[in-house]
Amino acid sequence: MIAVHIEKRRTSIIRVPKPRRPAGYSLIRLLCGGICNTDLELLRGYYDFSGTPGHEFVGEVVASEDRRLPGRRVVGEINLACGKCQWCKRNLGRHCPTRKVLGIAGHAGAFREYLTLPDHNLHVVPDDIPTSIAVFTEPVAAACEILDQAVIPKSENIAVLGDGKLGLLVSQVLHAAGYSVLQFGHHREKLRIAEKQGVVTELVRNNLPVAEFGYVVEATGTRGGLQTAVRMARPRGTVFIKSTVHGSVAVDTAPVVVNEITLVGSRCGRFEPAIHLLRSGAINVADMVSNEWPLSKASDAFARADKSGVLKILLRPD
Amino acid sequence: MIAVHIEKRRTSIIRVPKPRRPAGYSLIRLLCGGICNTDLELLRGYYDFSGTPGHEFVGEVVASEDRRLPGRRVVGEINLACGKCQWCKRNLGRHCPTRKVLGIAGHAGAFREYLTLPDHNLHVVPDDIPTSIAVFTEPVAAACEILDQAVIPKSENIAVLGDGKLGLLVSQVLHAAGYSVLQFGHHREKLRIAEKQGVVTELVRNNLPVAEFGYVVEATGTRGGLQTAVRMARPRGTVFIKSTVHGSVAVDTAPVVVNEITLVGSRCGRFEPAIHLLRSGAINVADMVSNEWPLSKASDAFARADKSGVLKILLRPD
Repeated sequence: MIAVHIEKRRTSIIRVPKPRRPAGYSLIRLLCGGICNTDLELLRGYYDFSGTPGHEFVGEVVASEDRRLPGRRVVGEINLACGKCQWCKRNLGRHCPTRKVLGIAGHAGAFREYLTLPDHNLHVVPDDIPTSIAVFTEPVAAACEILDQAVIPKSENIAVLGDGKLGLLVSQVLHAAGYSVLQFGHHREKLRIAEKQGVVTELVRNNLPVAEFGYVVEATGTRGGLQTAVRMARPRGTVFIKSTVHGSVAVDTAPVVVNEITLVGSRCGRFEPAIHLLRSGAINVADMVSNEWPLSKASDAFARADKSGVLKILLRPD
Repeated sequence: MIAVHIEKRRTSIIRVPKPRRPAGYSLIRLLCGGICNTDLELLRGYYDFSGTPGHEFVGEVVASEDRRLPGRRVVGEINLACGKCQWCKRNLGRHCPTRKVLGIAGHAGAFREYLTLPDHNLHVVPDDIPTSIAVFTEPVAAACEILDQAVIPKSENIAVLGDGKLGLLVSQVLHAAGYSVLQFGHHREKLRIAEKQGVVTELVRNNLPVAEFGYVVEATGTRGGLQTAVRMARPRGTVFIKSTVHGSVAVDTAPVVVNEITLVGSRCGRFEPAIHLLRSGAINVADMVSNEWPLSKASDAFARADKSGVLKILLRPD
């Protein structure tokens, strides 16, 4: 079978044997994969990664000990946790210290014809969610994580900074949860995707509001975004950091201290609310697909995904 | 009367008229002032400050409309708030957007023979607290602020990074509140001050523990402290940022996001719990006084306060 392979900051297609299915794991045939900014960061050398990337996927289970799974379409949680430690016992396997992470650390990713994941990482995709929609489950879950980390009063206006993939999902998830969201971005055509769902957006031209928002979500994916987000937060406000950027970020911490701002790092989330939201149609992900590419042309697809203005690139087995 | 004056990064003593007491304000004769790291930062150009610094003080009220005040020793909250805005109505005048700040912004500081402050900023010092102890009220309140910002489970071990003035107060305040505190510092003789009160300390020699603490307080006053604190926090842990440093701090935000760390900026606190703690004797501040200097020699006192190994320098009117 073929698999995407990253090594020394290059993407290639390699031929590998179909993976062996360990006990407690399912063997899954890839139906669709989504290229995430983290995949692009891996290609840039983040985590000194080499191997097969890919953690956003929909697949069909072809073999499993769990009788409910064979033949079903599934999405999969990306953290392979030990199941025994304090974190796992608190249902926070996402922070298990010995975890492997699909396509990121210690477990080959989804950008290959067949992959394996523990049965308990899998969620069956309801029949009424198309594959090209369900492939957004993982990033929608990451957007939902904000709502698991803080109890935000419904009266609050939330600012979302950035109109990339994650920014568009965050603004829509928060809007769907009943919040009044103001999303700031540089791309009129991207902002329109969230606008269709009712999100109020503002094209960034000059100065952004200062000290105005009780809650700000930093999803710019840029090194300067955090400093901007801190400036927009009012005293005692909260800034969620969703962007993972490689290397050091310069932050003036004096306003963080003087204004007693809280910065909350925010990563993966639970899949259940994400599947529920995608099924409800509350989130417009269809317009976020820029292109579909065959898996065998993944190098071109990665190059395309890295271009400015491009949103989600999907990979389909040939 | 004489006043300390900072201009163009130099300290001098100037002669100024005794201040006029506005309605609702008290006129206060300085009994004792404490030099804080913020004062040293002002001297280094922080906030483009020029004027009379000083926000840690004990004074005697010599004139006031409030009958309870004349003749009493007082300490004073440093934020002069409008009293009318949403922040003030929530008892958070410390964040009033139009506030002035004693000795920092818009209101001449305490390092002069007489000062003024609004009556409602003043707290009478109980007779059984000596002046040289009561002068620590403001920084002890800043240490107490952590306990107002988060509900920390009593079972948690808290790491305090730094053995300077603020670090020593934070460790003692948290210990007095019933927490198990581990304080890390570079100075055996400073750490001993907290040890006397029962705080467990560790002299930093080589590597600090990684991902071990649910709560870490960054009080190093250095640019590198935040990065170290983030490394010490376990996933979903909280880092309180108490150091105000001038200019940008480089932080690797990837571990903040991946481990979902919360960073909480923490500044001034309420005076009531601080006065209570100082009265109880639970905090060893007596050993934190390195020297007392006459107000007229404030330039020498500032130079001394900036030396490594020096803790609190007090100023007394000549």
